[in-house]
Amino acid sequence: MQRTEPPIGVFDSGVGGLTVLRALRERLPGESFLYLGDTARLPYGTKSAETVCRYAEQAASILVDHGVKALVIACNTASSVALEHLRRRFAPLPVFGVIEPGAEAAVAASRRGEILVIATEGTVRGGAYERAIRALRPAAAVISTPCPLFVALAEEGWVEGPIAEAIARRYLEPILAGRPEIDALVLGCTHFPVLHRAIGAVTGPDVTLVDSAATTAAVVAASVEEGLLRPSRAVSREIRFLATDAPQRFARVGAVFLGEAIAPTAVELVDL
Amino acid sequence: MQRTEPPIGVFDSGVGGLTVLRALRERLPGESFLYLGDTARLPYGTKSAETVCRYAEQAASILVDHGVKALVIACNTASSVALEHLRRRFAPLPVFGVIEPGAEAAVAASRRGEILVIATEGTVRGGAYERAIRALRPAAAVISTPCPLFVALAEEGWVEGPIAEAIARRYLEPILAGRPEIDALVLGCTHFPVLHRAIGAVTGPDVTLVDSAATTAAVVAASVEEGLLRPSRAVSREIRFLATDAPQRFARVGAVFLGEAIAPTAVELVDL
Repeated sequence: MQRTEPPIGVFDSGVGGLTVLRALRERLPGESFLYLGDTARLPYGTKSAETVCRYAEQAASILVDHGVKALVIACNTASSVALEHLRRRFAPLPVFGVIEPGAEAAVAASRRGEILVIATEGTVRGGAYERAIRALRPAAAVISTPCPLFVALAEEGWVEGPIAEAIARRYLEPILAGRPEIDALVLGCTHFPVLHRAIGAVTGPDVTLVDSAATTAAVVAASVEEGLLRPSRAVSREIRFLATDAPQRFARVGAVFLGEAIAPTAVELVDL
Repeated sequence: MQRTEPPIGVFDSGVGGLTVLRALRERLPGESFLYLGDTARLPYGTKSAETVCRYAEQAASILVDHGVKALVIACNTASSVALEHLRRRFAPLPVFGVIEPGAEAAVAASRRGEILVIATEGTVRGGAYERAIRALRPAAAVISTPCPLFVALAEEGWVEGPIAEAIARRYLEPILAGRPEIDALVLGCTHFPVLHRAIGAVTGPDVTLVDSAATTAAVVAASVEEGLLRPSRAVSREIRFLATDAPQRFARVGAVFLGEAIAPTAVELVDL
């Protein structure tokens, strides 16, 4: 008889968090995942902290109602404003955000301690990356700047070429010119890792790009290895997708971020 | 004693509809306006018809509760899916959309009857412009294409220059090359009029850009002139702004679309 095992729940405002799911699958090939994209209310990045916190709780509740064994907030904006709230609200369920793992990776990558964070307006305004980086390295200089066009660019799939590079140049060159000591750049929005080539073409080889997807997956994997999270013993793993609106668009655009095709029929519409 | 007069209500998913408000103010300088931006749930353009219809009804209800004498749906996506629903729901209140005025202007502007509509994904999928144009000119050839990056570009204020032109070229050149008879282009999203110079640089002088803001304002003004809508007799007119989230961002980004500064204190936060 096949044993069923609760999945790890992952949510984001839309498809960007699929970069985190992709990293989680690579690190935890035996686990099942249930991913929710709150596509009816995306983007979170331009909205107020109170609104994002309320939306994040509602999104998390759907996953909890499906019986997940842990929650991963695969969205920088929601992680920066709602992590502590969700931990209290759903205790003792383990809840992971992407900010602290991203900050750890940035501190490890930076020799000179001057770090640039690019993110959505909401994440930059909340200042969570600055706090998390300075908690680890108090003398670090952290510069944060919103790059909202990167979200639309990634969703359109125009992730390389002259337009992506021109936009990256316009956002980043004035900052890098004024702060030549910057040697680490945090991709502080789950949409941004797909743009790493265009961003890297502007920053050059001297600046390490830090992708919090991989480091978040490592933190979740460590919890499993340390026994804080029960490993899956299921015979077969399963990946399921939920979206609060437009499941066909989710499947089409999501493929860019997951790195593989998603069948439109694999995405279930849920109401919030 | 100063007489108070009900305002004309105008709503959009965010700040794009301020291009319509700007045109309305120019045509109807004696009227008061109450503008609502549903910023908590923007954008409408990537969402399903059912969701947009529900959001539009809720946004309209706030304005109706404030006692407006007419409603203008200053959003192409909401006009294309919710106009008839809102007309029935709030009858006998006059409700105006932007699609039919835009279609009329396009038909008037096109000599050869080949018309390109650029819009959000939702507006293109709904096909309302095609239907409205063909109702007026059955032999017209209508090509519609979504240009979602234009929304982010306009919100960022990067409305002119090489990046805006490169994006316009990538969206439009392949279509214009394949359909040389196109002689009218409908700016089928209220965000797009601020990009008219960049778009015009790609289309050239042979293609007329049709902005539904001006023609919608003309239709509303005609209703006042024809006595279908009672003109304002107030001593002073008033423009008020409501936003469902992030009123400071509304004020900052909205200035691009209204064409003048908006004081952050002039935007009232309302709950939906």
